[in-house]
Amino acid sequence: LPSMQTSGSKSCPCPSFKLREVASMYFTMIAVFLVILVVALQGSAPRGSDFPYKVPLDPRGLLELSWNVSYPEQAVHFQLLIRDLQFGLLFGMSDRGEFENADLAVLWSDGHNSYFGDAWSDAEGQLHMDSQQDYQLLGARRAPEGLYLLFRRAFSTCDPKDYLIEDGTVHLIYGILEKPVHSLQAINISAIHRGLQRVQLLKPNITIPELPSDMKTMEIVAPDVVIPSQETTYWCYMAELPDGFPKHHIIMYEPVITAGNEALVHHMEVFQCAAEFDSFPHYNGPCDSKMKPDRLNYCRHVLAAWAMGAQAFYYPEEAGLAFGGPGSSRYLRLEIHYHNPLVFKGRHDSSGIRLYYTATLRRYDAGIMELGLVYTPVMAIPPGEDAFILTGYCTDKCTQLALPAAGIRIFASQLHTHLAGRKVVTVLSRDGRERQVVNADGHYSPHFQEIRMLKEVVAVLPGDELITTCTYNTEDRSRATVGGFGILEEMCVNYVHYYPQTQLELCKSAVDPGYLHRYFNLVNRFNDEEVCTCPQVSIPQQFFSVPWNTFNRDVLKSLYGFAPISMHCNKSSAVRFPVRIASQP
Amino acid sequence: LPSMQTSGSKSCPCPSFKLREVASMYFTMIAVFLVILVVALQGSAPRGSDFPYKVPLDPRGLLELSWNVSYPEQAVHFQLLIRDLQFGLLFGMSDRGEFENADLAVLWSDGHNSYFGDAWSDAEGQLHMDSQQDYQLLGARRAPEGLYLLFRRAFSTCDPKDYLIEDGTVHLIYGILEKPVHSLQAINISAIHRGLQRVQLLKPNITIPELPSDMKTMEIVAPDVVIPSQETTYWCYMAELPDGFPKHHIIMYEPVITAGNEALVHHMEVFQCAAEFDSFPHYNGPCDSKMKPDRLNYCRHVLAAWAMGAQAFYYPEEAGLAFGGPGSSRYLRLEIHYHNPLVFKGRHDSSGIRLYYTATLRRYDAGIMELGLVYTPVMAIPPGEDAFILTGYCTDKCTQLALPAAGIRIFASQLHTHLAGRKVVTVLSRDGRERQVVNADGHYSPHFQEIRMLKEVVAVLPGDELITTCTYNTEDRSRATVGGFGILEEMCVNYVHYYPQTQLELCKSAVDPGYLHRYFNLVNRFNDEEVCTCPQVSIPQQFFSVPWNTFNRDVLKSLYGFAPISMHCNKSSAVRFPVRIASQP
Repeated sequence: LPSMQTSGSKSCPCPSFKLREVASMYFTMIAVFLVILVVALQGSAPRGSDFPYKVPLDPRGLLELSWNVSYPEQAVHFQLLIRDLQFGLLFGMSDRGEFENADLAVLWSDGHNSYFGDAWSDAEGQLHMDSQQDYQLLGARRAPEGLYLLFRRAFSTCDPKDYLIEDGTVHLIYGILEKPVHSLQAINISAIHRGLQRVQLLKPNITIPELPSDMKTMEIVAPDVVIPSQETTYWCYMAELPDGFPKHHIIMYEPVITAGNEALVHHMEVFQCAAEFDSFPHYNGPCDSKMKPDRLNYCRHVLAAWAMGAQAFYYPEEAGLAFGGPGSSRYLRLEIHYHNPLVFKGRHDSSGIRLYYTATLRRYDAGIMELGLVYTPVMAIPPGEDAFILTGYCTDKCTQLALPAAGIRIFASQLHTHLAGRKVVTVLSRDGRERQVVNADGHYSPHFQEIRMLKEVVAVLPGDELITTCTYNTEDRSRATVGGFGILEEMCVNYVHYYPQTQLELCKSAVDPGYLHRYFNLVNRFNDEEVCTCPQVSIPQQFFSVPWNTFNRDVLKSLYGFAPISMHCNKSSAVRFPVRIASQP
Repeated sequence: LPSMQTSGSKSCPCPSFKLREVASMYFTMIAVFLVILVVALQGSAPRGSDFPYKVPLDPRGLLELSWNVSYPEQAVHFQLLIRDLQFGLLFGMSDRGEFENADLAVLWSDGHNSYFGDAWSDAEGQLHMDSQQDYQLLGARRAPEGLYLLFRRAFSTCDPKDYLIEDGTVHLIYGILEKPVHSLQAINISAIHRGLQRVQLLKPNITIPELPSDMKTMEIVAPDVVIPSQETTYWCYMAELPDGFPKHHIIMYEPVITAGNEALVHHMEVFQCAAEFDSFPHYNGPCDSKMKPDRLNYCRHVLAAWAMGAQAFYYPEEAGLAFGGPGSSRYLRLEIHYHNPLVFKGRHDSSGIRLYYTATLRRYDAGIMELGLVYTPVMAIPPGEDAFILTGYCTDKCTQLALPAAGIRIFASQLHTHLAGRKVVTVLSRDGRERQVVNADGHYSPHFQEIRMLKEVVAVLPGDELITTCTYNTEDRSRATVGGFGILEEMCVNYVHYYPQTQLELCKSAVDPGYLHRYFNLVNRFNDEEVCTCPQVSIPQQFFSVPWNTFNRDVLKSLYGFAPISMHCNKSSAVRFPVRIASQP
C-alpha cells in the first residue's frame, strides 16, 4: 500500500534547493502506520546508544530529544522520539524560544504523503522553505514507543536564515501538527500546540576522571513529595549529615529523578547551611510557605546544582568539594523547582541529587568565587532598553594580592542574573589583552541556571583580570532597574568553581559613587530639571526620577565606561583585601 | 619539455582544502615560456570581448585588469593581463588597500612549477592558503602582449577570511614576484613591488538609453600638457563655449585619454563658471599655481566628472543636463588630476572629456542637489577616533515644501568628504522607516570621488527623508576636526543627480548650536575644567580645548543623536525655504 521514494543526497549543501519528498506515509484518522525510510547521508547514522544527552521537550513527555555533539565534525546529531505522531511536527531553535525568526525542521503530512524539510519563520511567524537544507534527515524508525527521527545539523551553516549553534543555552522549540496540512506555507504556527525547552546543546567533551575505590554515595532526596498542582513550585527539604561526619570530598554528583516525572523536575540544588548555627529545623514543604522557618535562609552555600538536560557533574581529578568535618554545618537544604504547566494533580515525587564522595581527600579543596557586579543600586539599567550592558571587574590588583603564585584553575561556572538578564560572558584579560573566554552564554535565561563544566580549564594567574559583562532587556519596564537582591532588581554574577581554594570569595566591582553623583547633577542640568540630588535622596530614588531619553541613557552608558570603579576584593572572613578604588583598564 | 597537469574541479566550494597544482610552467632566468592551461569550470570562460571594464593596476602599466559583473550569478569574472611575468603575482582586495588582512589570489613559481591559489594575509602580513578556494582559476592564455589569467570570484563566499564584494569603492591590491618562491608562506609581502588601485567593481547594469540622431560632440581637452614630474598635479584648463551658444542638453559624456597615459590620468572634472561674470581668463596650468587667476574659483558647478575605471556616463532618456543659453556662463574649467608616482618626465598629454549633447531638449532638465551636513564647525569629530559617525538630514518638512507632488528621481550620486572620510551612505526614509539605500560606499576614499550611476533610480516624494551618514577616521590627529571648507576640516555630502530640476539645491542639517553650547558647559563641569565657554570664543576653539577622553567623546555622540537639528533647505537663489529647526526623527 504505501509507496516509497528515495533521493540521492549531495555531500555538500549547495544553495540550490529542490523540495525532496523523503518519506511516504500512510495515515488513517486514528492510527498511523509508518514506513521506515533511511536516507543514507555521508556515513552511517549513529545508533541509539550514541546519544548521551536526553531531555523531554513537552510537559506531557510526548516528544523526547536525545543528541550527541561531534566537535571534529562541528555538528549535532539529533534523535527525536515522537510518541503519538499525528500529522507531523516542528522542531527548531530560535534566539529566545520565540516562533518568529526561528530555524525549523518540519515533518508534515497532507494525510497521504509526508515531507521533511529545513524551514524558517519570518518576523510574522510565516513558514518558508530554506534555500539551503541544513537539517539533514538521516533516518526514520518506527518502534513500539513511537517514531524516531534522526537528523543532523552543523553548528554553523552559510545560510543567514539559520540559527548559529553556540556554547551556552539553546532555546529549542517544538510544535505538534494535529491536522493534515497541504503545504509548509499552510501551517499556521500560532494555532498549533507548541512550546519551548532550554538546554545546553553543546555539552563539553570532558574526560571522566578516575573514581576512587572507596567512593560512597549519599542521596539527598525529598521523600514522597506530592507535587503541588500549580505551574511553579520551589520545594524545600532539609537533610542532615550523620553526627561526627568527618571531612570528605564530593567528587561527583548526579540527578535522581522519579520515573515519569522527567518533564516536571526543572532544576534542583543542594545548599549547605551556615556553620554558626548548631541546628536547623527539619522542614519539608514549599520554600515560599509562611510555615518555612526563617533560619533556612542561612542555607545558601551551593554544594550541587542540576538543571534539566544536565548530566552528572564531575570534579577534576585533583580536586573535590569539602563537606563534613569541624567548622562546617551538618545541615543541608535541598531545593527542587517543579515546573507543572499542565497542572497535574497528585503526582508523587522523590527526586533529588546523589552525591559521590570519598574520605581519601584529593590534593586540593575546590572553591567557589563570585565574579561580576557588587549588589548595589549604583549599577542601574534605564527602562525601555533592549540590550543594555553592565560590566563588573575582578581587577589585576585584586588577583595580584589574593591568588597564589601558581594561580588557580577554573573548571566550572554558573552564570546568574535576575529577570532582565539576556546574555552573560566572562573573559580573562592578561596584560590588557583579552586572552580567553571563561564562560559565555549569548542566549542566557534566568530560568535556566546550571553549573556548567568548562570545555577547557582556565588558568588564572596573579595579575590577570576577569571581566564579566551582562546584557539586560528592560523593554517591559517603565522605571530604572537598579542593582540589588530583589527579584525586580538586578545582578550580574558568575560563580566560578576552581581549585585550589583561596581566601578570595568575592571579586566584584561597581562604579565609583562620586562619579554617579556627578552624572545625576549633569543630566538634571542638561535637561533643565529641578530634581533634588541631595545626599539624603536614595540612589534608587534618584534613578527613578531621571527623565529617561536617549541622551540620558547614552551618558549613563558613557559614565559606566569611563568612571573609576570601586573594587570589592573580599576574603572568606568578609574582610576586604586592601584594594578599594581602581581605574578601569 | 614542460610538463602539464590538470585537475578536476568541484562545482561547489566545500570547506575541504587541497593544494592543487593547476599549471606547470617552465621558467628561464630571463625569458618565460608559458604553457597554456585551461581548467574548465562550470561553463566556459567568458571571451576577451566580454570584459567591458578595464583599469591599469600599476603606474607602469604592466598589469591590466579587465572584468565583468554577473548579477544573476552574483560573481565577478576577472581577466588580468601580466605584461612581463617573472615569478608570479598577487592580486586581491582589502578594506582600504592594505596588505594585512587582505584576500588574495596568488600565482607563484619556484622556477620549475607554478601554482595558483586563494590565500589571505593575517594582521602581520603573513600569507596563508585559504581553507576554501574562492578565486576560481578559469584559464591562462599566452599572447604576444603577455599572460592572460582568467578567474572568477563570487561577491560573497562563506569564508570569513574572504573580502565581501559590495557596491561602492573596492581597493584592489597587487604585488609582483621578482624571485622564485618555494611556497606561499615564503612570500615576504613587505619586500615585493606592490601597490593599490581603487575601482568601483560592481558597475551598475544600466540599459543604455537611445541617443538622438542630432547628437553632437564637444571635446573639452587640455591640449598638449607636459605632465609635471611630480606625484600629484591638479591641472586647470579654461575652455569657452561659442558666442551665442543656445541651451542644449548634455545627454552623455566619456573620457578622452591620450594613449599611453591611462595609468597617469587619475580623474577629471568639467565645471561651469558662475553666470555673474561676463568673462574668465584663459588659464592653462597647475591649479595650485600662484599664476592662476582667482576668478577661476568661481567655476564650481559640475558638468561632468570621470575617475579611473569609470565608463561613459549616460543621462536617463527623459533628462539632460542644461548648458548654454541665457543665464548660463560660456566658460568651462577642466580639472585633471595627474597621478605620477614614478615621476615620469616629459610625458605629453591631451586628455579630457567628450560631451555628447543635443539641441532637441529632452523632457526634463537634470539638477544636482546637495545632501548631508552644512559646512559648519558645530559638527566635529574628536581626535583619535577610528570610526566616528556624523549624520545629516534632509527632513520630511523640507521635501514636503520643496519637491513637486510627483516627486523627483535620483539617477546618480557623487559622495564627498575631505581626508578623514571612510564611509558614506544615504538612505531614503518614508513614514519613519528606512525604505531604500540611495548610495552607499563602505570603503569610501576621498581620493576616489566618482559620479556613480545608481543601479536603480530612486523616487523621492514630498515628505520623504534623506539621511546621509559619514564615518570618519581621525586616529592620526591630535585635535578635533570641525566641519568646514578647509582640507583638514570635514564635509559630509552626497551630490545627487536627479530630474526634474527643482529650486531645492541644498537640503542639509547641523546640530542646533544652543545644544552644542550646553555640551561645552557640561563637559567642562564634569571634568572640573575651567574652560571659557563664553560666546566670543569660536566653536573650533571650544572644540580644540575639550580635554578628549572616552566620556567626552561618547557624550558628543549622544548629543548629536539627541539634540534638535537646524535645517538648511535652500533654493537656488540662496533663499532658504522656511524650514529652520526640526526635531530629529
